[in-house]
Amino acid sequence: MRIGVFTSGGDAPGMNACIRAVVRSALAAGHEVVGIRRGYRGLLEEDFHRDEDGDIRMKLRSVSDITRLGGTILHTSRSSDFRTEEGLKKAAEILRKYAIDALIPIGGDGTFHGAVALSRYWKGQIVGCPGTIDNDLLGTDFTIGFATAVQTAVDAVDKLRDTADAHERMFLIEVMGRHCGSIALYCAIASGAEIAAIPETPTRIDEIVRRLHAFTQRKKTSVMMIVAEGDEQGGALELQRQLQERSCPYEMRVLALGHLQRGGSPVFADRILAARLGDFAVQSISAGKTGVMAGDIGGRLALTPFGETYATHRQVAPEDLHLLEIMAT
Amino acid sequence: MRIGVFTSGGDAPGMNACIRAVVRSALAAGHEVVGIRRGYRGLLEEDFHRDEDGDIRMKLRSVSDITRLGGTILHTSRSSDFRTEEGLKKAAEILRKYAIDALIPIGGDGTFHGAVALSRYWKGQIVGCPGTIDNDLLGTDFTIGFATAVQTAVDAVDKLRDTADAHERMFLIEVMGRHCGSIALYCAIASGAEIAAIPETPTRIDEIVRRLHAFTQRKKTSVMMIVAEGDEQGGALELQRQLQERSCPYEMRVLALGHLQRGGSPVFADRILAARLGDFAVQSISAGKTGVMAGDIGGRLALTPFGETYATHRQVAPEDLHLLEIMAT
Amino acid sequence: MRIGVFTSGGDAPGMNACIRAVVRSALAAGHEVVGIRRGYRGLLEEDFHRDEDGDIRMKLRSVSDITRLGGTILHTSRSSDFRTEEGLKKAAEILRKYAIDALIPIGGDGTFHGAVALSRYWKGQIVGCPGTIDNDLLGTDFTIGFATAVQTAVDAVDKLRDTADAHERMFLIEVMGRHCGSIALYCAIASGAEIAAIPETPTRIDEIVRRLHAFTQRKKTSVMMIVAEGDEQGGALELQRQLQERSCPYEMRVLALGHLQRGGSPVFADRILAARLGDFAVQSISAGKTGVMAGDIGGRLALTPFGETYATHRQVAPEDLHLLEIMAT
Amino acid sequence: MRIGVFTSGGDAPGMNACIRAVVRSALAAGHEVVGIRRGYRGLLEEDFHRDEDGDIRMKLRSVSDITRLGGTILHTSRSSDFRTEEGLKKAAEILRKYAIDALIPIGGDGTFHGAVALSRYWKGQIVGCPGTIDNDLLGTDFTIGFATAVQTAVDAVDKLRDTADAHERMFLIEVMGRHCGSIALYCAIASGAEIAAIPETPTRIDEIVRRLHAFTQRKKTSVMMIVAEGDEQGGALELQRQLQERSCPYEMRVLALGHLQRGGSPVFADRILAARLGDFAVQSISAGKTGVMAGDIGGRLALTPFGETYATHRQVAPEDLHLLEIMAT
Repeated sequence: MRIGVFTSGGDAPGMNACIRAVVRSALAAGHEVVGIRRGYRGLLEEDFHRDEDGDIRMKLRSVSDITRLGGTILHTSRSSDFRTEEGLKKAAEILRKYAIDALIPIGGDGTFHGAVALSRYWKGQIVGCPGTIDNDLLGTDFTIGFATAVQTAVDAVDKLRDTADAHERMFLIEVMGRHCGSIALYCAIASGAEIAAIPETPTRIDEIVRRLHAFTQRKKTSVMMIVAEGDEQGGALELQRQLQERSCPYEMRVLALGHLQRGGSPVFADRILAARLGDFAVQSISAGKTGVMAGDIGGRLALTPFGETYATHRQVAPEDLHLLEIMAT
Repeated sequence: MRIGVFTSGGDAPGMNACIRAVVRSALAAGHEVVGIRRGYRGLLEEDFHRDEDGDIRMKLRSVSDITRLGGTILHTSRSSDFRTEEGLKKAAEILRKYAIDALIPIGGDGTFHGAVALSRYWKGQIVGCPGTIDNDLLGTDFTIGFATAVQTAVDAVDKLRDTADAHERMFLIEVMGRHCGSIALYCAIASGAEIAAIPETPTRIDEIVRRLHAFTQRKKTSVMMIVAEGDEQGGALELQRQLQERSCPYEMRVLALGHLQRGGSPVFADRILAARLGDFAVQSISAGKTGVMAGDIGGRLALTPFGETYATHRQVAPEDLHLLEIMAT
Repeated sequence: MRIGVFTSGGDAPGMNACIRAVVRSALAAGHEVVGIRRGYRGLLEEDFHRDEDGDIRMKLRSVSDITRLGGTILHTSRSSDFRTEEGLKKAAEILRKYAIDALIPIGGDGTFHGAVALSRYWKGQIVGCPGTIDNDLLGTDFTIGFATAVQTAVDAVDKLRDTADAHERMFLIEVMGRHCGSIALYCAIASGAEIAAIPETPTRIDEIVRRLHAFTQRKKTSVMMIVAEGDEQGGALELQRQLQERSCPYEMRVLALGHLQRGGSPVFADRILAARLGDFAVQSISAGKTGVMAGDIGGRLALTPFGETYATHRQVAPEDLHLLEIMAT
Repeated sequence: MRIGVFTSGGDAPGMNACIRAVVRSALAAGHEVVGIRRGYRGLLEEDFHRDEDGDIRMKLRSVSDITRLGGTILHTSRSSDFRTEEGLKKAAEILRKYAIDALIPIGGDGTFHGAVALSRYWKGQIVGCPGTIDNDLLGTDFTIGFATAVQTAVDAVDKLRDTADAHERMFLIEVMGRHCGSIALYCAIASGAEIAAIPETPTRIDEIVRRLHAFTQRKKTSVMMIVAEGDEQGGALELQRQLQERSCPYEMRVLALGHLQRGGSPVFADRILAARLGDFAVQSISAGKTGVMAGDIGGRLALTPFGETYATHRQVAPEDLHLLEIMAT
């Protein structure tokens, strides 16, 4: 079989480890692999990864020593015009032209929406890998890139704690995750942050101000508040404004970590998850599966139909909310 | 209730996060907490953690901002004379003297052996938390400290890859784990190491030399071999000697990472696991449990009798061995 | 003699290493040291660092193991009302009340302005140490904290490069330094950034757009632009706006590193500079000096009158601009 | 002119940044650059860096984004047979064959010895750059790679401090530097280590034991001793043995950091030094210089004849010894 692999949507640390796993696992199983550059957009432009001699078939050597690299050697993009009927037909044609039997897209919900659309026009197999820092997909406990994003956020909070203590200040740190509060929640528990604002629970400014006053009474010299970018009250700047209005007792500073969370060498957990799911995706294709995402649920490998992975929002575990409350109060 | 908490045996990153969780969770539940310094040895010497005013009851403030610290604020020790009948009786007496109702020991198999012995002379509850980098306990997928130890090892391999490539050399990197190959296995998969030697599988020198010759043919410019300190063939120096004898085609260098793997700020996964298990240990004590270790199996909290946690060696998952083979060959 | 030490203004990594050096050097010379908390504001409030027994004299133990900590154990503040005549008189009185013979303020230009003002009302000796990430003082090649701030910025640019490459984007990264472009310049040279905008040289948008077009022709897949917060054209958001207006050929993203640059464990260069200058400040006081800042110029220790340290803006070395041009074009 | 650049001897972080600077500076000046792989050995084997199209002339693109990489893209080696008369003649011939006018070797004393030998048989210009972690060359305050090696060592000591404190132990940490104690001395001052053993000063075991007993009296819970691999009493294991014999009051552990110190992404100071010296080497060649090493002394660029750079051992600055004494006692 000839398997096409590509990365799409926002990049996530561990995508390279996943590409490497797909290539090594496929070659070990006797398949061929071609790397499609720049996601769906690159597919439409027939932009393939090529070796020095121009060959589009990836070798062991093509993925040598990329495990530790951030970003993606196949590059990525967010393509809007792919999902027209015309675009999908053209993509299907190109896949046939290059004799590609199966696809392994690595990305998030947008990527899987695209896969579902494509499968209306193309009959090859598609098994996806969850590559996004947001951890917002059902069908896997963690997405590839989430662990590194959380670690980056925790390292940042650790650093800011130093300067917050020195000045006796409060910091509002905005982390990524779109409509999902996972990064914020994990970051808050792990960093010992005092407050977290996430979209899955109501953010009550009055209640926060009340707690801040309690902190001043306990002579707390610094306060860290982690804000999910998708919090229903708004981002960190908006929350700062609202806290200011309600006479927040601490001098505040805001920092949005932004794209820092996407970069850097992946932590080992993302590398291992990427290896596991990349290998499992290849095995699933060998076993004839299609239209599914490879995931890890409670330590067991599992396949979930694309449609279910993004059908509803992931619920926050009540235990994690309990933990936040105990650890942060 | 009055709960005593202590750390014992080899220190592990995340022990402080666990102490903090125990204190915060216990205070939230209305219990008192006393910190016993230096493990069982400190218990025998009535060496308690004391606030500035001399009070042995720990406060929220006693564990303020310790989540990110390596080591253990309660210190630790490996006590040999604790487990005499005399020692155990004395320990029981001291626990009664200080009106301690329950104990939360944080440590590994030696610590839990001690707990079992102590329970013959003392009728309070004991619920342990798995604090060891070795990941060698049954009853939890991961022990507190393991993730940080693996990350430290992976970071080291990443660094050594640079210099190995520059000189076209092979490195044998010895990692910790005693009789357990978990750190070595995870480190090898995550770092893309070419070879791993672990106690759970036979290490065949001839086979390794054969693969090394294949590498030279593929013009591989560097080779990383991860050696578990407990490999049945010996440590990294011994393996280097044996490889040398069989005409290893690469110039070799050896590095034993040693105690580096115990130190440093814990990665977020260890902090969260520590928080979860520390809180769960307190809840389990409130619920009347005793003689058990708190663990996390497949994302679910679970209690396992002490005796079962160290009864047999942890098996390596066949999927992980498969992954190593695919990723490393 | 009794020496008072304090930190003031924005905190900088290495301040703790400097406090430690002052204490150790002073005790070795037979002096006493008292730590004033929260800068000039703490002085007015008689807020002294106290040992567990309430003693204000600092011991070796008071500064044990603080070298590696970010922030400042003495805390800091930016006091506006200190510099009234009333404030200065009160401060002088308090210094006499506590029998303080000499002061070692650790901070930046605001701190030294305060020292000059204070010396009109108080006759003790004052020898300052340059503690600021901005590197904007004359009389020393580098200020304490600058090296760590640059390293933090370079680490961030390295991370962003991953994600910029993956998406074929341009990043505008805003770094600190107030009116001084040192952090931006060093960060740009060290990170191999393509463009730097600093206040010391004219930032010409048209010229930048021209170069960006040349980059697209060379098929450069990512561009990093380092923006000093004090650039005469404005910060990173403003420059993004201007570039957008002139049809920048790259999709742009902005990140302001903000207070991340103040936090974290100091790099070794800051720790050593802090040790050297803290010790030198104590020696200078022993030698009867006053009204000066301790600095390191070309590897030699030097004292510079406070007034000269902030009299004019530091010039950017032409060699560094040449280097930027060669390395970045 | 056609300039050949190569790295030789032990690799050092920053070598890639230096290669990049040489290439960019030379191209900007209108020269050609060829990269010789694997040092003198590669020269003898006509092993040149080649672009995808086989061209040996390096382009801007050849050194794109390598600043942050450890190791050396040109690889390195320690060649013993280069320095025979035959080897030198052959090397000279090859240089003439490829029309190379000038060489920029990046390495340490062995590399410069080689350059001096080669210049007896070849009349091209040679200007070297100091690339070695050892900091053992006269003619420059710091060598490229030294800063990263010190930072790696300091990070390791910070980590070990956690576990040393937890167990109330002493660690002997062996660092690199061959006959030179620079890494050990800087690491000791920056990490707040209690003891340093360096070849430039007598290491007196009795005196050390006396101090250790004083530490126990002050109830110091951990002791860090930095040992230069070239200490005249031997390495860390030998010193442990001697301390054990004299009844060292602390339980001891040994860690040799070894090649960890050579790897990893270079810190900014090494990158900037590399850029500065690489550029200066090209300028010096343009100006007709030869037989000299480019260095930075007190912030000023300087050329030193090769023979002087390794003629005598670098002296340790008395101020640094004073600093160690004050900071460590």
